[in-house]
Parts: sequence; structure tokens; C-alpha cells
Amino acid sequence: MPGLTVVGSVAFDSVRTPFGERERMLGGSATHFSLAASFFTPVNLVGVVGDDFDPDYDELLQQRGIDTRGLERIAGGKTFFWRGHYDYDLNTAHTDTTELNVFANFDPQLGETAREAPVVFLANIQPQLQRRVRAQCTGARLAALDSMNLWIETERDELLRAIAEVDVVFMNDAELRMLTRQPNLLLAARDLIARGPRAVVAKLGEYGASLYTSEGFFSLPAYPLETVVDPTGAGDSFAGGFLGYLAGSGADASDEGELRRAMTYGSVLASFNVERFGCERVLELTREEIDERFEEFRRMTAIEALPAGEGSHA
Amino acid sequence: MPGLTVVGSVAFDSVRTPFGERERMLGGSATHFSLAASFFTPVNLVGVVGDDFDPDYDELLQQRGIDTRGLERIAGGKTFFWRGHYDYDLNTAHTDTTELNVFANFDPQLGETAREAPVVFLANIQPQLQRRVRAQCTGARLAALDSMNLWIETERDELLRAIAEVDVVFMNDAELRMLTRQPNLLLAARDLIARGPRAVVAKLGEYGASLYTSEGFFSLPAYPLETVVDPTGAGDSFAGGFLGYLAGSGADASDEGELRRAMTYGSVLASFNVERFGCERVLELTREEIDERFEEFRRMTAIEALPAGEGSHA
Repeated sequence: MPGLTVVGSVAFDSVRTPFGERERMLGGSATHFSLAASFFTPVNLVGVVGDDFDPDYDELLQQRGIDTRGLERIAGGKTFFWRGHYDYDLNTAHTDTTELNVFANFDPQLGETAREAPVVFLANIQPQLQRRVRAQCTGARLAALDSMNLWIETERDELLRAIAEVDVVFMNDAELRMLTRQPNLLLAARDLIARGPRAVVAKLGEYGASLYTSEGFFSLPAYPLETVVDPTGAGDSFAGGFLGYLAGSGADASDEGELRRAMTYGSVLASFNVERFGCERVLELTREEIDERFEEFRRMTAIEALPAGEGSHA
Repeated sequence: MPGLTVVGSVAFDSVRTPFGERERMLGGSATHFSLAASFFTPVNLVGVVGDDFDPDYDELLQQRGIDTRGLERIAGGKTFFWRGHYDYDLNTAHTDTTELNVFANFDPQLGETAREAPVVFLANIQPQLQRRVRAQCTGARLAALDSMNLWIETERDELLRAIAEVDVVFMNDAELRMLTRQPNLLLAARDLIARGPRAVVAKLGEYGASLYTSEGFFSLPAYPLETVVDPTGAGDSFAGGFLGYLAGSGADASDEGELRRAMTYGSVLASFNVERFGCERVLELTREEIDERFEEFRRMTAIEALPAGEGSHA
């Protein structure tokens, strides 16, 4: 049975960008990830919210094929809240407020379906929790994680242990350099691959994303958009498209062609996600739009061979 | 008759990077450009040097099919000298010394062959000079230019006039944003295309390069290298591979497939250039190595279509 488990944050986000602002939107890494992945495979969402979390949101997620039985609700608790803004350099999020609330004591409990999913994504949470969840997912043939500078600074050794236990690592380029203390991204990726993972995905913001494996290298530009309205959740949407595709296709992380298609679906979902605030765009997205943009990516990056008989001068 | 004219600096460079240092190497934008282009087409180099410029260098260039009759030698003058260094962030050149010397009064004089070449590259010199040279190149079916932050700050209007008179603009992303006052690269490129050029090439350093035309978008990652020894001249080598290929193939800037192949040859030449100091690597390069790496770029960026019968979940 196909399927995918994600463990991460479910949050309310208040975001201001040069193109507008929104108060208390549905957000969080597990939310963005689940919505993106839901186009390809059933998703088990494992997270925690307070009783300020409107049951309509539960329903919204379930309508997209997302199983929310693993979304724990803490009575009297408040949901994780983040307030941030972006200036014209949309690559940098400026945090104004972080209220962890119930997320501070998050102790993920996985039901049987979640534990047996063939693919698991450990979104950006403490490396200790990532390892505990990974150990519970006995059915997973493919595990992946994301992380952030906070854990690199405070929990580097534990994060490296978590990385050794997964197949795919998603990180942005600055984090990869910081974690490995290696300025060259190719060498940074090789450093991580030597510790266990089959693939490292470097998220490059407006420059797209690169895939490093022991056999090869692949890179995709970001989809060229006139307006990036809100970059929040782009990385999680990328991971959702990537792993959702692999969960749906049944491929593992050793099939280079499948990994490249996964990179492309990741880029597609990230590009839609940033077109509007929060999850607004992805909630209206169709599979047809996704496949059209997938084909656009293929056309956008194709290099035809030389015309026959092309000669050299020197 | 095919051929290409380049007008720009010929210099001595002293460079220090984390991987070593060199004193007074042969350098300059026109030098790096000419050597890269020489694999595809005869090149007319137009520049100026002092009488400290060893005739052996002339011979070196001529052996590569570069016509140096346009390389003026000022008796009693000294050749342009640049001293700079790079830290581990190899995207940023730190200038320690710039001695313009004879380049300060550079007034390019083009002979008949240079004026009639079908392709002309106006390397990074004053926009006024770029325009004067462009006007002299009555035989050029394809003209291109590069520029830099200095001219954007001091000669913006004249630079925009120069841009209106060429077909292809090469600039790095920060310069494109600064020139157009537009943070979004797609809109920055469209702004320039609306002024006349058919194509804008955004040089993205370690992230590669993107091509914007009125019809489309194309992007290539940089070739993944374990060690970038010296990035000096990478942009000019890129332009040399790009325009050299188009000069050799006879294509103009309206053929999207040819432009993509030109982008690929540009990326190939830039990637070889940074493997060693100055021109060391390109001087030893063969056309076979170039074509092998061209094919590697094709494989590196290929996305296969979906396997037949791939279905959607939602």
C-alpha cells in the first residue's frame, strides 16, 4: 500500500511581504508538506495543535486525503504561532515572533498506519525527535529529513546521527555549508552521503535546487515567476512534491531517473506554493496544472544535441 | 566569413585564492574571452598594452587563431594591472590594486577585418566606448556587451543606450537588479529586452547562468567542481564560449535552440577556466574535452518523461 507519513509543525502564520499581509493563516512545515504530497499519495500527518485549532482545518486536510488521526489536540493549549516578514530580498525570512506553545512539548505518537507507511518525512524538528520517529517507522523503505541552523548550532552531533539514519537529506545551501564546515557544496553533499544517505537535496531559494547522489548531479532552476508573493513553506512544499511523487511511484532513492522526476515535482509544488500567501494557491491546485508545469520544466531545461555535421574551428 | 571581434582589457593579474597565488599572469576580459572563443571561430582582439607586454604573449594568442593586429602597443606605457584575492566565498573578488595605466586612455581603433566580423563582443569598458565600437562594426549581425557596477553607478543612461544597440546582454544578477532597480530577475530581464536586446544572460556565479528571451527561459547550473581554484575570468570565458559558438555556427540571437547550446558552451568554458589560475587551464584545453563536457551538461540536466501509465492519486 502506498502512503507517506510526515512529522512536523502545524502552525498559525502571520506574514507580511511586499505584496500584502495575512493574519493567522494555516501553516507549519507538516501542513505545507502534506498538502503538496497529497496530490500523489495518501498522507499521515503527525503533529500537535491547541484547542484554538478550528475543526474546519481538520476537515480541509482530510478532504485532500490527509489522515489527521496523528494530529494531537492539547486541551487548554495554544497552537504554534509564527509571525514574520520578508523584504524585497524574498530569500530571507525575518522572524518577528515565535510562540512554540504546545509544540514546545511535542512528543510524536505514531499510530499503526503512520508507522507502516513506506515513506516518512521528518520535517524540521529536534534531531532527537527525528531519530525517535525514524525508529518507530519500521515499515519505511525511504526516510528523509529537513533541518535548520538552530539544530546545527545546538545539536550538531545528534543531527549527524539522524542524518545517518535517513535516505534523503533536504537542506538549504547555507545550512549544508554550516553543518559540514565545507564551503564547496559538492564536497558538503559528499560529506553527508559518506555518512549514510543516498541523496542530498540542496535548496537554493530563487536559484532552484540541486540533487547530489553518489553517482551523479542534477540541478533545476526555480520556475521563473514575475511575483513571489510569499515564500513561506516553499521548502516543505518542495519536499512534499518530491517525496509524495516517490511514495506514489513506489521508487526508492536509488533510481536516478525517478529522483530527477521527484526533483521536478518538488520544484513544481514549491513554485505554486509561493504564488499566493500561505496554502492559498496549493489548496486550489489541480493535478492537471501540476503536470503542465512539470512539462514546462522539461522544456525549460532541455538542451538539444548539436545539429549533425557541426564542426570545430580549432 | 565567420569571425568575432572583441574589445576589452588585456591585463596582468596577480591573484590569491585559498588554493594558491600567482603574480602578473596574462589576464583581462578580452584575453579570457578570446581564448574561450578561439575554439569555435577566428577572433579579432582589440585592446591596448604597454611595452612591458612580452611579445611571447602575442605569439601565444596568435597560435590560438587570435588576430592581435588590433592590440595597440603604447611605447613607454604600462599594461593594465590588477591585484585581487578571493576568500572561501569564491563569488566575491576583493580588489587590492587597480592600475589602469595605458587602459585609462584606451580609444579602440578597429581595422577592416575587425569592423566586418559578423559577431562583436563589447567587454566591460566605458559605455561610451562600447557605443563607438558598436557603430564602427558595420558588418556585425550580432552584438553583445557586458558591464559592471561602476558604469551602472556613474554612466547609467549611457549604458542603457549601449544596451539598446546590442542583441545580447551579459550581466551578473546583482548588476541586473541594480541597473533596472527591479529585485525580480525575470522582470529585470524583461525591462532590458523591452529596450532592444533579444536576450539577457544572467550570470549567477556558483549557481550557473540563466537565459531570458522574449519567448522563453532557460537555465543551467554551474558544472559541479570539487575545487574552484580561481574564478577570475569566468564570466568572460562564458561569454567567449557563448558568442564563439554562435559565430562559428552562423546562428543569430533569434534561434532558441542555438542560444541554449551557446549557454552550454559558455558554461563549459567557464567551468574549465576556474579549474586553474588565470588562463592556465584554457591554454591546455582541447576541443574534445569541451565537447565531452557539453555532453555531460546535457546528461546532467535531462529530465525523462514520466513512465507510461503513471497515474495520479488525487
